[in-house]
Amino acid sequence: MPNIRLAIVGLGKIARDQHLGAIAATDGIDLVAVASRNASLENIHCFPDIDALLASDVDVDAVSLCTPPQGRFEQARAALMAGKHVMLEKPPGATIAEVFALEALARKQGVSLFATWHSREAAAVEPARRLLAERRIQSVEVEWKEDVRHWHPGQAWIWEPGGLGVFDPGINALSIVTRIMPESFHLVSSELSFPANRAAPIAADLEFQTASGTPIKAAFDWRQTGPQTWDIRVSTQEGDVVLTHGGSRLIVNGEAQIVEEDREYRSLYKHFVDLVSSKRSDTDFSPLVHVADAFMLGRRNVVESFED
Amino acid sequence: MPNIRLAIVGLGKIARDQHLGAIAATDGIDLVAVASRNASLENIHCFPDIDALLASDVDVDAVSLCTPPQGRFEQARAALMAGKHVMLEKPPGATIAEVFALEALARKQGVSLFATWHSREAAAVEPARRLLAERRIQSVEVEWKEDVRHWHPGQAWIWEPGGLGVFDPGINALSIVTRIMPESFHLVSSELSFPANRAAPIAADLEFQTASGTPIKAAFDWRQTGPQTWDIRVSTQEGDVVLTHGGSRLIVNGEAQIVEEDREYRSLYKHFVDLVSSKRSDTDFSPLVHVADAFMLGRRNVVESFED
Repeated sequence: MPNIRLAIVGLGKIARDQHLGAIAATDGIDLVAVASRNASLENIHCFPDIDALLASDVDVDAVSLCTPPQGRFEQARAALMAGKHVMLEKPPGATIAEVFALEALARKQGVSLFATWHSREAAAVEPARRLLAERRIQSVEVEWKEDVRHWHPGQAWIWEPGGLGVFDPGINALSIVTRIMPESFHLVSSELSFPANRAAPIAADLEFQTASGTPIKAAFDWRQTGPQTWDIRVSTQEGDVVLTHGGSRLIVNGEAQIVEEDREYRSLYKHFVDLVSSKRSDTDFSPLVHVADAFMLGRRNVVESFED
Repeated sequence: MPNIRLAIVGLGKIARDQHLGAIAATDGIDLVAVASRNASLENIHCFPDIDALLASDVDVDAVSLCTPPQGRFEQARAALMAGKHVMLEKPPGATIAEVFALEALARKQGVSLFATWHSREAAAVEPARRLLAERRIQSVEVEWKEDVRHWHPGQAWIWEPGGLGVFDPGINALSIVTRIMPESFHLVSSELSFPANRAAPIAADLEFQTASGTPIKAAFDWRQTGPQTWDIRVSTQEGDVVLTHGGSRLIVNGEAQIVEEDREYRSLYKHFVDLVSSKRSDTDFSPLVHVADAFMLGRRNVVESFED
């Protein structure tokens, strides 16, 4: 198969920090164009938006959407309607209904749709999944606490409806837990803390339960200064399985395991190349479903105003 | 096929107002048991809860869950695990994840699951659906405004997280719109009004869009005294198609049409008998998906406290 000719839509922080390097390092895919309102790259065809790109005579096979989730539906739909394969940054959209619609459209158009969850590619995730398939799980505790000022400086969209607030990182934890747990689960209670001056939560305390009754607790907080915490602790009858550092390190029964170097975005692009070449899609929206549930079932507390 | 032996779980207002009469009037299904904490029926086996019912020697083939959505998952799961067919009152659950889990479990167990939307059985809905399939739709406006004090006197659960507030009636409108529209749609903006002392919204202003861009506006309000409004107005290039009175009356191009008498719950039970006898399920969760989206994408306004 010839290399996939890819366009990036939205040349913001995540595209520059992660996507450009990963694409350059991945066999089978070449960046040929960029559509971005305010940014451009040298030696690459640049367009102000995806409509201009699709109307041009630059041939692309696929687009990778790195724009914020609000408004991404129109871009994804335009690309799918034009017969392009589509890769979606997380979260895959602003609503559940729209991602289901994209899934149906991709199927109809016969192209690949990949709803990515980069944290699932963290080095400890697959070893943890294999371990847990063999163990009797008693409970799960997720602690995902970081400093929003450090990680999202001045990103206003993240505080708007659809920006998800603390669920923007929290959905990474949920993408790991949904991957490593052998059983599906659902929310049973949700407490959301909204700054008095913001439309999105700065913290969330969630309780889930698997179908057979195993409890899963998750605490997300964006107010953590000092050391940052991205840990998932699974208690099993055979001892603890703990993922730390966002899923990149693994501790089994108290012993740190050697895991490979993280290559989250390279793994995503490698998987995308595989999907396109085998004419498949990968659209597991369950992390976003849990987030929507957390809002629907959430009891809202108002907390101190947040200023950037 | 012998008649379906049915148990009702939750003998509250909706069961007494609607289910008992509909079951009695429907061929192919007999009420043989009730599981309800505080209520019982004469000449019917009565149990305090579904576990006691399932542990008893009373044979039932199916259960109809009329309990509030919070906590219904455990009941539905117990019934499905016991090999019973299950019919769910609307909304089908408190979370999207749990209704997907029930759908998967019913498939695995080889039994029928029916997520009911009684408003879809209103008399004008099917004629409207057929009309709209032939017309060019320009816009949709939903107005669903009622007096909560009249319709839900003292129902505390409806104001709790998972009780959905004004979406409890609003989801009826969404169940009609999702049925009559030839195209799927997704939310683009949501404004939710929460009474200062309540955990659920008393009003909602929603804007949806179909995949091809047709706007759908919905206004839900629980503060309407005097005449009650449950109207859906579809503007088409060929004239207006209007459903009033909760979908029971139809006005086409300004002319009232004759529609049959409403038999919403009888239609539901007839459909359930059909599903069980043909070993099928009917699990369209799209109205609940739109509600979850409305919470996730919702901008929240705090309004005057509400006292019953």
